[in-house]
Amino acid sequence: MDLKDTLLVLTVIFVLIKIAAALFDRFGIPGLVGEILVGILLASIMVGDYSIAEYLKIYSVNGGKREFYLIDTLANLGVIFLLFSIGLETRIKDLLSVGRVSLLVAVSGVILPFALGYTYIYFLGDGNIYHATFMGAAMVATSVGITARVIKDNNFTNTKEARIIISADVMDDILGMIVLAIVTGMTKSDTLDIGHVFIVTFEALAFVGVIMLLSLSVIPKIRKLLESHKFGVCVKDSFMSTKSTLIISVAVCLGLALLAEIIGLAAIIGAFLAGILFSECSSVESLRSKIESVNVLLVSFFFVFVGLQIDVSKVTLEIIPTALFVIALAIIGKYVGCGLGVKIGDRSIDGQSMNIVGLGMIPRGEVGIIVATLGLNTVVNGSTAISPELYTIVVLMSVATTIIIPPMLLAAFRKKYGVRLSSKS
Amino acid sequence: MDLKDTLLVLTVIFVLIKIAAALFDRFGIPGLVGEILVGILLASIMVGDYSIAEYLKIYSVNGGKREFYLIDTLANLGVIFLLFSIGLETRIKDLLSVGRVSLLVAVSGVILPFALGYTYIYFLGDGNIYHATFMGAAMVATSVGITARVIKDNNFTNTKEARIIISADVMDDILGMIVLAIVTGMTKSDTLDIGHVFIVTFEALAFVGVIMLLSLSVIPKIRKLLESHKFGVCVKDSFMSTKSTLIISVAVCLGLALLAEIIGLAAIIGAFLAGILFSECSSVESLRSKIESVNVLLVSFFFVFVGLQIDVSKVTLEIIPTALFVIALAIIGKYVGCGLGVKIGDRSIDGQSMNIVGLGMIPRGEVGIIVATLGLNTVVNGSTAISPELYTIVVLMSVATTIIIPPMLLAAFRKKYGVRLSSKS
Repeated sequence: MDLKDTLLVLTVIFVLIKIAAALFDRFGIPGLVGEILVGILLASIMVGDYSIAEYLKIYSVNGGKREFYLIDTLANLGVIFLLFSIGLETRIKDLLSVGRVSLLVAVSGVILPFALGYTYIYFLGDGNIYHATFMGAAMVATSVGITARVIKDNNFTNTKEARIIISADVMDDILGMIVLAIVTGMTKSDTLDIGHVFIVTFEALAFVGVIMLLSLSVIPKIRKLLESHKFGVCVKDSFMSTKSTLIISVAVCLGLALLAEIIGLAAIIGAFLAGILFSECSSVESLRSKIESVNVLLVSFFFVFVGLQIDVSKVTLEIIPTALFVIALAIIGKYVGCGLGVKIGDRSIDGQSMNIVGLGMIPRGEVGIIVATLGLNTVVNGSTAISPELYTIVVLMSVATTIIIPPMLLAAFRKKYGVRLSSKS
Repeated sequence: MDLKDTLLVLTVIFVLIKIAAALFDRFGIPGLVGEILVGILLASIMVGDYSIAEYLKIYSVNGGKREFYLIDTLANLGVIFLLFSIGLETRIKDLLSVGRVSLLVAVSGVILPFALGYTYIYFLGDGNIYHATFMGAAMVATSVGITARVIKDNNFTNTKEARIIISADVMDDILGMIVLAIVTGMTKSDTLDIGHVFIVTFEALAFVGVIMLLSLSVIPKIRKLLESHKFGVCVKDSFMSTKSTLIISVAVCLGLALLAEIIGLAAIIGAFLAGILFSECSSVESLRSKIESVNVLLVSFFFVFVGLQIDVSKVTLEIIPTALFVIALAIIGKYVGCGLGVKIGDRSIDGQSMNIVGLGMIPRGEVGIIVATLGLNTVVNGSTAISPELYTIVVLMSVATTIIIPPMLLAAFRKKYGVRLSSKS
């Protein structure tokens, strides 16, 4: 791909998503919905045998598989920087203060959706145990990126509900990983490999735990040392030092994202934790505004990428009723599960907060699609662990929860806290 | 390439180049030299049959050719944003005020190096007229990126010499394009296709001319209209509008870079002109500091990329004397040519300024390598338009001028203007 193609792809996508986001924003709908729709349109409008996305060289189709050259990388970096900036606004103590509630939200938000998905396929569907298990796993998925964007764009990061949702999402990612390890392990050996599940769990907990500990004890000491000696890191109001802080923090962000991927966690979990590490830097305000500039340019690529992966041509009239039913289950599972979780964890919480947390946990985003794709690529007893029809339904469910929920979530936040203008940057 | 590999490449390169740049900076050598050296080292240190760069998946080697997946794109975007930010600091009137001098600098900086390169091969080399012509063209190359970085990092953008160098570089790019059109045209048809050369020249001049005109007459009117009606563009001190300005200006930057590439000019020329278009926005200060944040993260990839393209294993003892001679010619050609050009254009200019402009025009950077590669891929009468040996020599010349000159240029600027701290950001 030469520079001309690269610039063509970048310019066209950048202009389209920014226009779409601005239009949707004007009508009070979160901009990300417009960005996802741009992706779906580019991928689904056909000119002859090729989609517009193919004409624009956004991807090429190789044996039915879409191969992205650039947008996937920008999308990943976009959501990594988004979670990094959320981390920068999250103090470790605030996170720990909602730890118990978040854990309950995460756990009940795993159990109920899994049970609903499994039960549905086992009793009402084809009864295949593997299909049922994968369906359960797909229902468990949570996409922190979608909710994080709504929270960040509208300046609700420092609300209690936002903290509960974000930390429950982090825990959900760990739980989801364990569920996937169990599920894929079962489909491979037909038995449960407890040792593997144990290792996966241990690695994930150790990773998060070590960074939390660093953030609580080691980092503050290093920071004090550096600030007292004017090493040029984390020192307020000096251009050079803010530039150094930007460079160092981005290096840590990339490094922890890589480490998270290596362990098997999502890269964004590493990025979020990196943000927390720097959230108490004295120059954090200036750092935030710099990362914000990068975010403005980068984050939308993540949402258009979610849309670009969807193949509308697979959607037939016959599957619509089933799809609607699955979407309803997906919404109920998370809404009721997480809403109850938050109430059990904190009796004093009101209905509005339950509503916000319940809504915030619903969007499956790209994670639902990833789990479904994994199921389609896993073969058990000669057939795939998820049928092609179910795959399309899970994708539809992921997209629907991603597009329907953000406007409702925004409305719920605004009902409780009023319209908040974005912070100066 | 999956996310793990992408993050590995990004993290390793980002950390290495930032450490190298910081170390070199500390010793008063421009950071870009360190970044280029990191690239050369990664590509040349072999572990078994593969370079470290191959182990890290920075590139893969396919039939002797290095295929980059990610770094090339980041490098291109880095230098595009660098020139965009230089454009943001350049007012069209300041540019026009040095127009005549710059033109003389550009023209004499084309004629003398071309004559030296051509004469050398024709009389002292193998006498092959095509080799001589391509050698001349390679000597003409100028890399605005290298000098621009030194100027920008040290806050000399608003000096007269910087303006002369940058606008002469833009003109050089157009002249270089015309020279290349003539040279490749000749090698293809053995005759001079005047029509083609005319079209190329016309397109380039029209592109630059139209944007200059827009910047002088149309844009100020639109700006006044928007500012008076508070459309949210170019309005001072408002977060939303600065964010809009950032988005719109980056869209224009990408669009003009694409247009420049389509016409056959370098993308960076489009980016520079886009910067000029926005340089008189009332919110330009805030826009600059936002682009600066992006630059801090992106621009170094361009310099490490220059280093990564170099194949040290091709350098043998025998070619060293010739290489040293060619490097000397390359330095003398630009230094004398451009130094004289500036003196002819402006009698009042002093020796220090002649020295700065002469030095600033010397680095060939990636452009010299691009011309050499083009020569290696052009076949005339059954042999390449540039011999493999000459190719290596031109690459060495490009690297040498790129590494040797920046410290001298920085010293010359500081001698005249003193050490300047970077602006607040």
